[in-house]
Amino acid sequence: MPVSRRNFLRGVGVTGGAGAMYGAMGAIGLAPSAAATPTPAFTPPAPSDFSLTGRSTRSVLVLGAGIAGLTTAYELGKAGYRVTLLEGRDRPGGRNWTVRGGTTETDLNGETQRVRFAEGQYMNAGPARIPQHHVTLDYCRELGVAIEPFVNQNADALLYYTGDTAVSNVAVKHRTAKADTYGYVSELLAKATSTGALDGELTADDKEALLEFLRDFGELGNSTGDPAAENLYLGGSGRRGYTVEPGAGLEAGTVAPAPSLHDVIAGGLGREFSFEFGWDQAVMMFQPVGGMDRIAYALEKAVGPSKVRYGCTVTGVRTTAAGADVDYVDAAGRARTATADFVVNTLPPHIAARIPHNLGPAVTTALGAAVPSPTGKIGLEYSRRWWEDDLRIYGGITNTDLDLSHVWYPSSGFHSGRGVVVGYYNYGQDALDYAALPHAQRRRRAVQNGAEIHGAVYGDDIASSFSVSWSKTRFSEAGWVDWESQTGPEYTTLLAPQGNVYFAGDHLSHAIAWQHGAMTSARAAVTSLHERVMTA
Amino acid sequence: MPVSRRNFLRGVGVTGGAGAMYGAMGAIGLAPSAAATPTPAFTPPAPSDFSLTGRSTRSVLVLGAGIAGLTTAYELGKAGYRVTLLEGRDRPGGRNWTVRGGTTETDLNGETQRVRFAEGQYMNAGPARIPQHHVTLDYCRELGVAIEPFVNQNADALLYYTGDTAVSNVAVKHRTAKADTYGYVSELLAKATSTGALDGELTADDKEALLEFLRDFGELGNSTGDPAAENLYLGGSGRRGYTVEPGAGLEAGTVAPAPSLHDVIAGGLGREFSFEFGWDQAVMMFQPVGGMDRIAYALEKAVGPSKVRYGCTVTGVRTTAAGADVDYVDAAGRARTATADFVVNTLPPHIAARIPHNLGPAVTTALGAAVPSPTGKIGLEYSRRWWEDDLRIYGGITNTDLDLSHVWYPSSGFHSGRGVVVGYYNYGQDALDYAALPHAQRRRRAVQNGAEIHGAVYGDDIASSFSVSWSKTRFSEAGWVDWESQTGPEYTTLLAPQGNVYFAGDHLSHAIAWQHGAMTSARAAVTSLHERVMTA
Repeated sequence: MPVSRRNFLRGVGVTGGAGAMYGAMGAIGLAPSAAATPTPAFTPPAPSDFSLTGRSTRSVLVLGAGIAGLTTAYELGKAGYRVTLLEGRDRPGGRNWTVRGGTTETDLNGETQRVRFAEGQYMNAGPARIPQHHVTLDYCRELGVAIEPFVNQNADALLYYTGDTAVSNVAVKHRTAKADTYGYVSELLAKATSTGALDGELTADDKEALLEFLRDFGELGNSTGDPAAENLYLGGSGRRGYTVEPGAGLEAGTVAPAPSLHDVIAGGLGREFSFEFGWDQAVMMFQPVGGMDRIAYALEKAVGPSKVRYGCTVTGVRTTAAGADVDYVDAAGRARTATADFVVNTLPPHIAARIPHNLGPAVTTALGAAVPSPTGKIGLEYSRRWWEDDLRIYGGITNTDLDLSHVWYPSSGFHSGRGVVVGYYNYGQDALDYAALPHAQRRRRAVQNGAEIHGAVYGDDIASSFSVSWSKTRFSEAGWVDWESQTGPEYTTLLAPQGNVYFAGDHLSHAIAWQHGAMTSARAAVTSLHERVMTA
Repeated sequence: MPVSRRNFLRGVGVTGGAGAMYGAMGAIGLAPSAAATPTPAFTPPAPSDFSLTGRSTRSVLVLGAGIAGLTTAYELGKAGYRVTLLEGRDRPGGRNWTVRGGTTETDLNGETQRVRFAEGQYMNAGPARIPQHHVTLDYCRELGVAIEPFVNQNADALLYYTGDTAVSNVAVKHRTAKADTYGYVSELLAKATSTGALDGELTADDKEALLEFLRDFGELGNSTGDPAAENLYLGGSGRRGYTVEPGAGLEAGTVAPAPSLHDVIAGGLGREFSFEFGWDQAVMMFQPVGGMDRIAYALEKAVGPSKVRYGCTVTGVRTTAAGADVDYVDAAGRARTATADFVVNTLPPHIAARIPHNLGPAVTTALGAAVPSPTGKIGLEYSRRWWEDDLRIYGGITNTDLDLSHVWYPSSGFHSGRGVVVGYYNYGQDALDYAALPHAQRRRRAVQNGAEIHGAVYGDDIASSFSVSWSKTRFSEAGWVDWESQTGPEYTTLLAPQGNVYFAGDHLSHAIAWQHGAMTSARAAVTSLHERVMTA
């Protein structure tokens, strides 16, 4: 779907822009006087509020055609620079990687997987969701990449936690866990409030307002008529979900009784509720229609595909008096050296750390300080959408303390013939454990654990599968990196140009593992480089 | 998009079916043994698990081609019955009504509106969202109506409540209100827990588990190092939203300070949080691609358009020894009488109550006991999607105690050239107040109040508008009806056939105002009628 340029007004720039406005105001929000503020004069349509003022024809070598590299090349190209990208893979995007039927990948264990997903089926192996305030969406708009909702929250998705309570080792709907947790939490706080335990904190009016909130929030009631039994969580509402759904005539619905306060609290049903409140995870979230790599290919097209040299492995980086040199091995296996006025190095820091350079030991130390973080996913392509047909789960995420961590149901293709479930999306030791296995064993383990949550249906109708371990993926070797400090000398060293070499990437941002981080970091590097050129 | 029949397994029938399974289990969820349950034998693909066994060629007159009438005719038709629908309007769907450019409607105030929305723009004037467990989705699947997410929850949509606190009379993001409310509620409960006020309710282990939950849920911390100052809501996190968004380099983001506990509680920021927990409102929700009336037209097509007589106003209903007679005035203004073996009357009860019949005074009393409930919406078509471009609100609902009640941002067409915002969706006295106004005044008032929330941008770029007042809409005269009791004699009278006349409609269900109610009620009437025919 082509996107009209008519509406590209006032996008969000490096520092957040309009999207941050309400957050900025916090509870203050829009001052009442805002309604009286005169409408700003019409702003001519513009693709984005990020642009470089002034043009240059200086040459820039960009190392890596991931999102940071592509964004760097794209923005520099718009300002006239002559850009060349060197990319180890044979495709753009880096970790922005959409796996489809026909995709072939050999991992660092030496195993080759050939993906056999049906036409139209895919898994976003890397980034898979975009918050509505991320600059990523501005690039989607600017580049005409159609978007659709990503289902990051679903009341009918499941929680499955091991333990020794009545709510342990069983699948519980998010909605049921919320109803019960909020119910008991509200009951407890209402009791403390009513008995005067919080009189030091609350005025009489505040107490009444708080109780009013809690009665609604926790659906508290009084089952006995005894005033001392007021504000109890009765657990009988449809918020928990129905055993028999309300329907025709006299069918008012049936709700199963709630477990005890002890089971709900000790079972830890609320341990991941706060996920939904996160700046980067709260609804709404989006995905490009057809796969996340639509962004990578749109950027590649905008940069000019001829500017990207694929299959090129960087082997040396040097700043020089005249500019910078980059040694690399090209797709044919020949050692080459490229020269430009500047280099922007967007390679993962733990990989860049191994490449010889003349930028000094502080840079080596800095690159080595980034701690690679493992993560992985498996895509299970089912020929029947049992999660919709049988369980009425239309997208969303199931959480578990089994080693799967998360199961994702697809956010598109509702009611269609098949779909790819992400059978695990895990981190840390769980990710390393799966990384060590060949694919067939990963799949077996994922299906076995998934069946604990979903029942035997989980093992039926699997048409094909593919797994990625990012720590075992060439040119990435991690899902992302962590820093001990993002103010310390290692991190800050990489924010400044080293001679004529700049660094960029999500690892040099406060949105690590997000394309937003890669894009804003690229914009920062580009801005710094351009200012230097313009004021030289 | 045609829907493959390959996957129509095990839909949800009258009583909820598989969709209710987890709810059924409540916190018990899937019993651990479920994983060991043998997979059921393959069930041949079927469009739905609702079907009538046995066939009949008896004739049935269906009064009203809304969703209940269409479903009645559709299901009876599948079982061989000869059905005819009499519909007052010139289109199917009843309150399932999608307003587009070219739509013309004269309301009971006598005002005619001609809709000038651009191609592709629409407003669902009646039902606009479908929960994932409603049987409505089964009909979408069965009839090949493509669906897409309806954005019923958005952390970046707004709350605007009047009052005299620091959070009153200003727009506050849902995310900010949640962060602050959950923060303070958690702080209060942590304090009560830590000071022993709840020792009668909680074991030592439960207390620790509860505190662990509250620290995460409310993002509690300790700013002083003083153990007595533990578990405080510090309010400094991105959950509130950022004034400066995290980004490149050292930009860790800036958060505005939280308002006081008193302001948050007394301001009532949490008064509508529970909306999101409701059985029928919790995410995920869906809408047909292109407008809710795709369901009505798909049903009409499946029934056979020739079976629907449009422009026919029913003027009399009589049960007879041989069947039933219906008097009506046809589209040409001629008085006619139709005869059939049975009648299924799906007209709104308050309208049916005015139509002469021979079903006895109990039926008149029953129909008259339904209390019509007013509601209305205005669609404001903007030529610029300022809510996305400027405010980064991609769909969702803003809540307010201004007379608008709700503002809806569109759930489709993201990043496209224009969109229709529902400027109010209100009920009760607010709906009556707007109903009494001509459209131009409704629009002026809606825009003025919307600008209080959104700022002056709200009045810019409005290309066209349309408002509906359901109490002023012919053939409906209400948004829905309420009953004093759904077990009392008035309600139950209409659940039983009166001679050869049956009643159906969402008003005869526990899903009033939902298509699910209309459909399940139709299924109940059809089942009752068919059983009688088959056992006669």
